[in-house]
Amino acid sequence: MLRSNSVGTVAVFFFVLSVGSTMAQTKPRARDLGVPFDGTPGPLNAITDVTGVEVGHTTLISGEDSQKAAVVRTGVTAVLPRGKDSNDPVFAGWFTENGNGEMTGTTWVEESGFLEGPVMITNTHSVGTVRDAVIAWRVKRRGPDKEGYSWSLPIVAETWDGYLNDINGFHVRPEDTFSALESARAGPVAEGNVGGGTGMICNEFKGGIGTASRVLDSKYGGYTVGVLVQCNFGQRDQLRIAGVPVGREIPGRKVWDDDVGSIIVVVATDAPLIPTQLKRVAKRVTLGLGRDGSYSGNGSGDIFIAFSTANSGAASSHGLRQLNMLPNDQINPIFIATVQATEEAVINALVAAKTMIGINGHSVEALPHDRLREVLQKYNRLLK
Amino acid sequence: MLRSNSVGTVAVFFFVLSVGSTMAQTKPRARDLGVPFDGTPGPLNAITDVTGVEVGHTTLISGEDSQKAAVVRTGVTAVLPRGKDSNDPVFAGWFTENGNGEMTGTTWVEESGFLEGPVMITNTHSVGTVRDAVIAWRVKRRGPDKEGYSWSLPIVAETWDGYLNDINGFHVRPEDTFSALESARAGPVAEGNVGGGTGMICNEFKGGIGTASRVLDSKYGGYTVGVLVQCNFGQRDQLRIAGVPVGREIPGRKVWDDDVGSIIVVVATDAPLIPTQLKRVAKRVTLGLGRDGSYSGNGSGDIFIAFSTANSGAASSHGLRQLNMLPNDQINPIFIATVQATEEAVINALVAAKTMIGINGHSVEALPHDRLREVLQKYNRLLK
Amino acid sequence: MLRSNSVGTVAVFFFVLSVGSTMAQTKPRARDLGVPFDGTPGPLNAITDVTGVEVGHTTLISGEDSQKAAVVRTGVTAVLPRGKDSNDPVFAGWFTENGNGEMTGTTWVEESGFLEGPVMITNTHSVGTVRDAVIAWRVKRRGPDKEGYSWSLPIVAETWDGYLNDINGFHVRPEDTFSALESARAGPVAEGNVGGGTGMICNEFKGGIGTASRVLDSKYGGYTVGVLVQCNFGQRDQLRIAGVPVGREIPGRKVWDDDVGSIIVVVATDAPLIPTQLKRVAKRVTLGLGRDGSYSGNGSGDIFIAFSTANSGAASSHGLRQLNMLPNDQINPIFIATVQATEEAVINALVAAKTMIGINGHSVEALPHDRLREVLQKYNRLLK
Amino acid sequence: MLRSNSVGTVAVFFFVLSVGSTMAQTKPRARDLGVPFDGTPGPLNAITDVTGVEVGHTTLISGEDSQKAAVVRTGVTAVLPRGKDSNDPVFAGWFTENGNGEMTGTTWVEESGFLEGPVMITNTHSVGTVRDAVIAWRVKRRGPDKEGYSWSLPIVAETWDGYLNDINGFHVRPEDTFSALESARAGPVAEGNVGGGTGMICNEFKGGIGTASRVLDSKYGGYTVGVLVQCNFGQRDQLRIAGVPVGREIPGRKVWDDDVGSIIVVVATDAPLIPTQLKRVAKRVTLGLGRDGSYSGNGSGDIFIAFSTANSGAASSHGLRQLNMLPNDQINPIFIATVQATEEAVINALVAAKTMIGINGHSVEALPHDRLREVLQKYNRLLK
Repeated sequence: MLRSNSVGTVAVFFFVLSVGSTMAQTKPRARDLGVPFDGTPGPLNAITDVTGVEVGHTTLISGEDSQKAAVVRTGVTAVLPRGKDSNDPVFAGWFTENGNGEMTGTTWVEESGFLEGPVMITNTHSVGTVRDAVIAWRVKRRGPDKEGYSWSLPIVAETWDGYLNDINGFHVRPEDTFSALESARAGPVAEGNVGGGTGMICNEFKGGIGTASRVLDSKYGGYTVGVLVQCNFGQRDQLRIAGVPVGREIPGRKVWDDDVGSIIVVVATDAPLIPTQLKRVAKRVTLGLGRDGSYSGNGSGDIFIAFSTANSGAASSHGLRQLNMLPNDQINPIFIATVQATEEAVINALVAAKTMIGINGHSVEALPHDRLREVLQKYNRLLK
Repeated sequence: MLRSNSVGTVAVFFFVLSVGSTMAQTKPRARDLGVPFDGTPGPLNAITDVTGVEVGHTTLISGEDSQKAAVVRTGVTAVLPRGKDSNDPVFAGWFTENGNGEMTGTTWVEESGFLEGPVMITNTHSVGTVRDAVIAWRVKRRGPDKEGYSWSLPIVAETWDGYLNDINGFHVRPEDTFSALESARAGPVAEGNVGGGTGMICNEFKGGIGTASRVLDSKYGGYTVGVLVQCNFGQRDQLRIAGVPVGREIPGRKVWDDDVGSIIVVVATDAPLIPTQLKRVAKRVTLGLGRDGSYSGNGSGDIFIAFSTANSGAASSHGLRQLNMLPNDQINPIFIATVQATEEAVINALVAAKTMIGINGHSVEALPHDRLREVLQKYNRLLK
Repeated sequence: MLRSNSVGTVAVFFFVLSVGSTMAQTKPRARDLGVPFDGTPGPLNAITDVTGVEVGHTTLISGEDSQKAAVVRTGVTAVLPRGKDSNDPVFAGWFTENGNGEMTGTTWVEESGFLEGPVMITNTHSVGTVRDAVIAWRVKRRGPDKEGYSWSLPIVAETWDGYLNDINGFHVRPEDTFSALESARAGPVAEGNVGGGTGMICNEFKGGIGTASRVLDSKYGGYTVGVLVQCNFGQRDQLRIAGVPVGREIPGRKVWDDDVGSIIVVVATDAPLIPTQLKRVAKRVTLGLGRDGSYSGNGSGDIFIAFSTANSGAASSHGLRQLNMLPNDQINPIFIATVQATEEAVINALVAAKTMIGINGHSVEALPHDRLREVLQKYNRLLK
Repeated sequence: MLRSNSVGTVAVFFFVLSVGSTMAQTKPRARDLGVPFDGTPGPLNAITDVTGVEVGHTTLISGEDSQKAAVVRTGVTAVLPRGKDSNDPVFAGWFTENGNGEMTGTTWVEESGFLEGPVMITNTHSVGTVRDAVIAWRVKRRGPDKEGYSWSLPIVAETWDGYLNDINGFHVRPEDTFSALESARAGPVAEGNVGGGTGMICNEFKGGIGTASRVLDSKYGGYTVGVLVQCNFGQRDQLRIAGVPVGREIPGRKVWDDDVGSIIVVVATDAPLIPTQLKRVAKRVTLGLGRDGSYSGNGSGDIFIAFSTANSGAASSHGLRQLNMLPNDQINPIFIATVQATEEAVINALVAAKTMIGINGHSVEALPHDRLREVLQKYNRLLK
């Protein structure tokens, strides 16, 4: 990957298309810095700890800041609930804490209880391109159904990266969607300035993609909950990390006067939840963001979707479907895991993201790791 | 049953507590008059065609119209999804087309996907009494749970009968709730001026309780859909019966200038639907009311709840639950049945209700059966 | 406009881009045929009776049925609440009766209460292209805001035209969106096989775009309510016109076995309604569709949006906004008008649409006007 | 006020009906103990800082723990948006984060955008009694409307106090509702074991009523936001105060194994917000609860309502209503204030509540103030 740190040099044009699966999680992650979190993460501490989930990123970085028309800092992230080779929908539910954003396809998720394809995340002005490209990809891969028809209502969400990216240049193309989908893999998930998160800003630090997971105790079924965020919300002084007012302790240059960002959150689990329950899970994301200090500003598109990889075949149209359902009385550990993994995924995005210079010479600094540790130490919250 | 047609006589106080199960459906019903409806009804053409469903009415009629304080024209209707001896919740969903009304307990239905007890219907000012009485009845019948606790969030809906009933006299007592519950039975359901529907008005004719059902063809699973309405909405000139503008053809004295009534609709089915799907079913009620000419006025509390008696044991808190689900792709016959049975249940209420004189000498006339037949004949829609 | 009736001839490729404003409403319309409707329409009996509203169509028809790859029967329709030269958002509300469809941008409508741009309607697979093109059009026309930013969340809805149109060919291009927007005009609105409605099917007759309006009596404020539909729903035997079972009386070749279509409905009014009230208006659309016989099948995307052109300047961010609001107690005439205009707009679409041959040699017949009159006569409902 | 600390003595029966207005806020409050909170509170740091808002409590404490049938630890709290002498509805919006609870009347709030009377809070099994009593109180106070009718849909919410209170004894009577309404006053608000909060438990400490407020800077309009909570949710180890893991630092005897409680939150403001915006405000409550550590368990009824005292006369049915509206672009300070005041009101409830012994000898300890200060000190968060 490439960083636009060559300010003042002659313009150099290039495209880097980086594929998430080839990149391990950036080190260190928030835990590595000694940030204390509750609960037990899965092996990767990533959404891909949920078996079957695949993630792919297309990262588009090109141009110098002095070349406004071509300063590209954007991309596409794909989350495939059962991997790219499955046509088997998953049960899903969604929720919006503040709707200044787009997530296409949610009307059908709400109605049917199913998520029928991938969840895509990109920038605000490229949602349409990505949406139609998902249809094209599906048509190409599996052909029409037996009656000769094929239609779909893809899920594509966005946050706005116009502070760093030439968003009005519409640089995301259908091919970028295909590559995010095709490159999707299980395993570690690249975080920070990658995929749809490439040009994002979080609490006036550099933001982007973050992920985390929790594994439940076997007495609660041993299920996994994974969260992936595209983090672009918040003002500096809101930011709390592990309850510590980190934002106030590390003041910086104002990026904006208001909360104009957004956050898209994808929650995956292998617990057998039905759509009603998955909506409940999606609503818990707000509580995790509350821990990080969010007030969900007017300009924020805080939209969340949760799905379950259990109950494969539930969407088949033939005969009665046999389902498993976790009783509501046993759902609390899933709720807790969702809150905890959301809280951590945002911080992971902040820790992984690197300082970026973008369009108009705009620069957004990364959260300084050493200062974070100092502040945690000041409040007796540093783990190691 | 009793009618207050002794205007001007000395006040006579009496209470009649009639129990629905002892009364067969009033004859004739709409079909008997030659009104054409689509679809195939069940044996009773009633919500009780869905196996397990029991209905009970407490009908309170007392007092002369000259005795304002004691002119009682009200009651309570109970619909028990699995009968009064079951503690087994059913999957449910609800919807409101216009919310100028109350249905308690819906927040938990929405959240949990379950309806945990009966659906009660009464007048607007007695919802509270009935609600707490349902809790008392449950506490008395089954005792607290193993930890010594017991709580519940009863479903109680209402429409306003203050034109005929001394609604501010709060005449419904806890005992009336108990009797509606205890008297609930399978079998024919009394319609018209009974139970919660006693003092209700529909399209400025006398309204009240109505019911209907549909049985699906065996190729669609042979499921039954039953509907019960407490019908209190609409202005005369809106009324359409089988598409015929009956309201305009049978003008009458105005009862009110606006649509100030309401309609509560309960939909039952034995099809194995999950909560997401039952909300969809509840939304189809609106389409049935549209056929009858409703515009769902500002003053109307048009609130609908749908439940499925399939998947017994789904609410058990132990282990994973095994469920059956009808695929969304097979749900259309259920939707059609809901629309059709709703359309008919309203007309059944109108046909069954008898002219009533109530408080302040107010009188509301019944839909005249002979005129209805004449109007249907005029538009070539009379079946026989 | 062009019709593909040259079966068997050598393939001829052409594009016709027809502009709605240059075409008066097709004659006859449903009223001209003697179909009885309630209420008083505006001068145009169209959504454009609401002052300020402009409608534009781009109609794409090309190719022979024997040339599968190029049989284009689709388009784009634009409804601009205050015309194409305004940047002033309108209050809005939306509702979905069945969500098997897409209307992008609704999350922000729900959150903010505002509709910030046009409502676009196209085919299912072109939503994305149209969406991003609306952003591009806005960026081009008005430039970024004072901070140098510009973003938006366009409203783009769809129904599926793949039975007649080569939907997987993705034939709608950004330019087609621009032309629909640029050509938008007040005045008569072309109906039937135009714009987004070009390849649509309604109750297994040829469907498409329809419109109607109502003007309230001056004692109710004299407001106008206009409706525009893109009509693609229903099975033949459901269809009721003015309460008459027209669908059963005019049986025909089955197009499909199930209700796989959709209907998008746009309601405009100049009554000063706030967002809460506009959602209520949107919910009344269902009642109008109920009158036409809809049961809102599982495959149907029945999504409605309502807006008010009153309260210009309400979205300005400076100072307190002064608003007018019609009291809820006076809203019933608006509700009635919405039901009536919806009922009629669907029938207008059916009456205006012409028989079309499309991809794979598929053919869908128009509603035969003479047969419609005969059936209305049979049921004593023909007006003249 | 009285505490049942006379375990083992002969049963003594007494009722204390304490009136909130005669009791100043309990001292100390959370701030007095040095807990750091963000933002600027109003003079009372209470919901009554919003001009016009009145609060009344009826507190019912009687019986010994050895006398199960008569161990009463419950009550009623009334929040009157414009005081008890006003019939003028307020704009309102509501939201539920987890719906295992009841708030009657919300269907009409959602539909109409208005809250037409007080917000009442009591125990789960007394909602009905309180609801009908509110109607009786309104009928008695103002009589029917000009047509002779009167109806209403009161707002009554609840949390479950059966661990300490004989909830199945149904000890709340209509008179207790009247007294809460009649005793309502502006000024300081009693907190802790009062009114509906008398027998409540929060994070396994004694909970109950809490309140807080924020005043916006004059550049943001100088508006006030006040919050009142009836706090009955959470498990000990969740509890965070000012970001500090207080619950884990002060472990104690387990009261229950799961999050079986609830929290009702009322948000008042004098900012001129319309219903759409007030729903947004209500949704911010979740973020405040997130800061306190809530995960909103399955058993929790977390239901919130927000209203604005601006725009008096908005509900009048005559003529067009003139409204003021704060632009969405200026709403962030209201959101922030809501989050902050919610966070603090919960902690105020915990700090004010006193240890209580109730039914079955159950005892719940108060949050120990000295230990709280020690823990804050440990994490360098103690203010003084």
